[in-house]
Amino acid sequence: MAEALRIGVAGLGTVGASVVRVIAEKQAELARQCGREIVVTAVSARDTSRDRGIDLFRTAWFADPAELAANAEIDVFVELIGGDDGPARASVKAGLEAGRHVVTANKALLAKHGVALAEIAERKGVLLNYEAAVAGGIPVIKTMREALAGNTVNRVFGILNGTCNYILTRMEAEGISFDEVLKDAQRLGYAEADPTFDIEGQDTAHKLSILTSLAFGTRIAADDIYLEGISNITQADIRAAAELGYRIKLLGVAQRTESGIEQRVHPTMVPTASVIAQVHGVTNAVAIETDILGELLLSGPGAGGNATASAVVGDIADIAKSRPGFQHGPVFGRPAKELKPYKQAKMRSHEGGYFIRLTVHDRVGVFAAVAKRMADSQISLESIVQHASDLGDAALKTVILVTHETTEAAVRKAVDGITKDGHLADKPQVIRIERAD
Amino acid sequence: MAEALRIGVAGLGTVGASVVRVIAEKQAELARQCGREIVVTAVSARDTSRDRGIDLFRTAWFADPAELAANAEIDVFVELIGGDDGPARASVKAGLEAGRHVVTANKALLAKHGVALAEIAERKGVLLNYEAAVAGGIPVIKTMREALAGNTVNRVFGILNGTCNYILTRMEAEGISFDEVLKDAQRLGYAEADPTFDIEGQDTAHKLSILTSLAFGTRIAADDIYLEGISNITQADIRAAAELGYRIKLLGVAQRTESGIEQRVHPTMVPTASVIAQVHGVTNAVAIETDILGELLLSGPGAGGNATASAVVGDIADIAKSRPGFQHGPVFGRPAKELKPYKQAKMRSHEGGYFIRLTVHDRVGVFAAVAKRMADSQISLESIVQHASDLGDAALKTVILVTHETTEAAVRKAVDGITKDGHLADKPQVIRIERAD
Repeated sequence: MAEALRIGVAGLGTVGASVVRVIAEKQAELARQCGREIVVTAVSARDTSRDRGIDLFRTAWFADPAELAANAEIDVFVELIGGDDGPARASVKAGLEAGRHVVTANKALLAKHGVALAEIAERKGVLLNYEAAVAGGIPVIKTMREALAGNTVNRVFGILNGTCNYILTRMEAEGISFDEVLKDAQRLGYAEADPTFDIEGQDTAHKLSILTSLAFGTRIAADDIYLEGISNITQADIRAAAELGYRIKLLGVAQRTESGIEQRVHPTMVPTASVIAQVHGVTNAVAIETDILGELLLSGPGAGGNATASAVVGDIADIAKSRPGFQHGPVFGRPAKELKPYKQAKMRSHEGGYFIRLTVHDRVGVFAAVAKRMADSQISLESIVQHASDLGDAALKTVILVTHETTEAAVRKAVDGITKDGHLADKPQVIRIERAD
Repeated sequence: MAEALRIGVAGLGTVGASVVRVIAEKQAELARQCGREIVVTAVSARDTSRDRGIDLFRTAWFADPAELAANAEIDVFVELIGGDDGPARASVKAGLEAGRHVVTANKALLAKHGVALAEIAERKGVLLNYEAAVAGGIPVIKTMREALAGNTVNRVFGILNGTCNYILTRMEAEGISFDEVLKDAQRLGYAEADPTFDIEGQDTAHKLSILTSLAFGTRIAADDIYLEGISNITQADIRAAAELGYRIKLLGVAQRTESGIEQRVHPTMVPTASVIAQVHGVTNAVAIETDILGELLLSGPGAGGNATASAVVGDIADIAKSRPGFQHGPVFGRPAKELKPYKQAKMRSHEGGYFIRLTVHDRVGVFAAVAKRMADSQISLESIVQHASDLGDAALKTVILVTHETTEAAVRKAVDGITKDGHLADKPQVIRIERAD
């Protein structure tokens, strides 16, 4: 048997502790699968005294993760510190420059510095694996980077944030408001004390930007992503969606269009009978549409110590199975130097169906005015429903429009016009509809 | 750039032609991803004159696939001949013995000779890749063999045969009989002229046997699989399932139990709200449950020239990314010599919920007799529904029982008893219920 693969782990939070424990517990089985032992020989964490329920007795401790990363006594540096700069970036860079393979779960780091880090890894001939950075334990990186070679991706979309999906699932199941569910989610540990990063879609955007690069061979451009969170989704939206045969999910979507690549994160109506609509709670899912294969869907646990550790250990095992002299494929599917600049499609040119919910004053001519604005924008309607307003005011009505395929620009123009007409008693709600099998 | 990877393809049916075409069409992109070109340099097929819509002008032709496989002018032998013996087996064996990497889509061959072939591959230090052999274009082999390292699998189950799922989907959607749908499926090319191999579950069993080995590190034992096909599923079953909140799917299931490993293929009721219940038509799906990750589900196209070619090209690309001296992980996850003998769990000890549909003579005491037989077998019932028989005979009634968790042995004993009591007017129908999220 080959010599043991020596692992240095920086960051011993929930995920780090899980990684150390899984490697220890599955030592014999991993050796059987990889043809060599995998051993955590060194760690770095701020708190050296906390009991993490793992045996670190014979493990070397490093105060500085960058020093651990560059240490010649390890073969693989595992970065689980988090953050898009600071010690995470410094240590990953130091590790790669020193010729260590690196495994990271850090989506923020990759979204910001992924291409630069990939260039170092490819220059040094080492692996930079990051399965855990997107959709937790779901092997979407491996699938896109390896299994789909030969396929041209047309669209990739998914439920990439467990907190948002948990909130939307409970809002639908229990009929309670966003604020109520959020508070409960915070109490139960499914949402952070400051939930902005999750509920406003930034976390989804980071993950989507990585998938976009893998899908389309472009440089990572997380800042160019159109972003809408779920905090303004109401029970009225969820009920109207259900009546129309849809369910609301926060999706990240990247697709090839004539005017460039669309990257967008927003609440989305998906058909209730689609597979992705059945993805409940903290579960994540990714759908990939390609020219050769067609549509592939992967769903599973998107977060949590063990699910993330599963992906990290899978990445380490891939390195353990490789041997000196081996060159794996490039970090983002294509050589980092050849990744093309990201050409952003304007959100205004997005084409699709739209759900529009209006709260209007119950007056003669309102309906005609709304219809005229839609017609003026060349928007053809699939359905129109009018009923009593949810706001409990008899002088108000709710009008729900579902459009056929149209453009974002046309919808914005029509809704702006309706707003100017002065018939609205509340902010108009616009939710995009996404085709899904 | 490294030297081109030279591919020899044996078998130029739908899949073989797709593989040759995809490699040619995606040549530049594959080279970018793999760091070297992939070129089909030689082929073998019985008919040398047929127009397959692909350019084979500069390609060497071999009459004997085994001769092609062993030829020193190729690096990878791709076997797409089919069949569990004969030229497929001879050529794969010849290729491995000659030190060629081998890619195959042949589930029957692997189900019968997979372990012996893996031993040769591992002894020779070459790769034997077979992603296309199970669930077509879904990367389930890569997921189980690579991504889930560190996980212990507890259960793997799936919809592994597109023909069966297509028939069941149409039976439910259109309310027509098995025979009618089968005839139409044959006309449309979704079912073979002799459909036995698909509809009686053998095809599913072959694929399941491969997944079982990957999941549990056991030798492949396709012949030990409990088998029931879908030909006796009726509209009465499908309607009753829908009323109870279930959908009927032909599943292959392998799970770890106290008495060994259960491998079974049978029509199964899955909850309508589960993800796997939304897998319609020819689509396949595989669910994998592990100790670390939890439940992962993959769904996508399970058959067809392009979907299968996608998996074959992915396998070839993995080889192209490797370099001389590289040793990949073992063929079935663990070294072939260390695969344990398969210890079969007796089907009689299977535990689960059961759906039992009885057609009884409408007489005093029948219901009591049925209830007594269930009680005598210690079976507790979740629900009992009695209604007019579907057979249109007023003297008959349909009784539908859904049991709580019980054993196969108990159910068989109870149903045998009910049959002996003489109240049944038709063959009793028993369908297992499978837990699914």
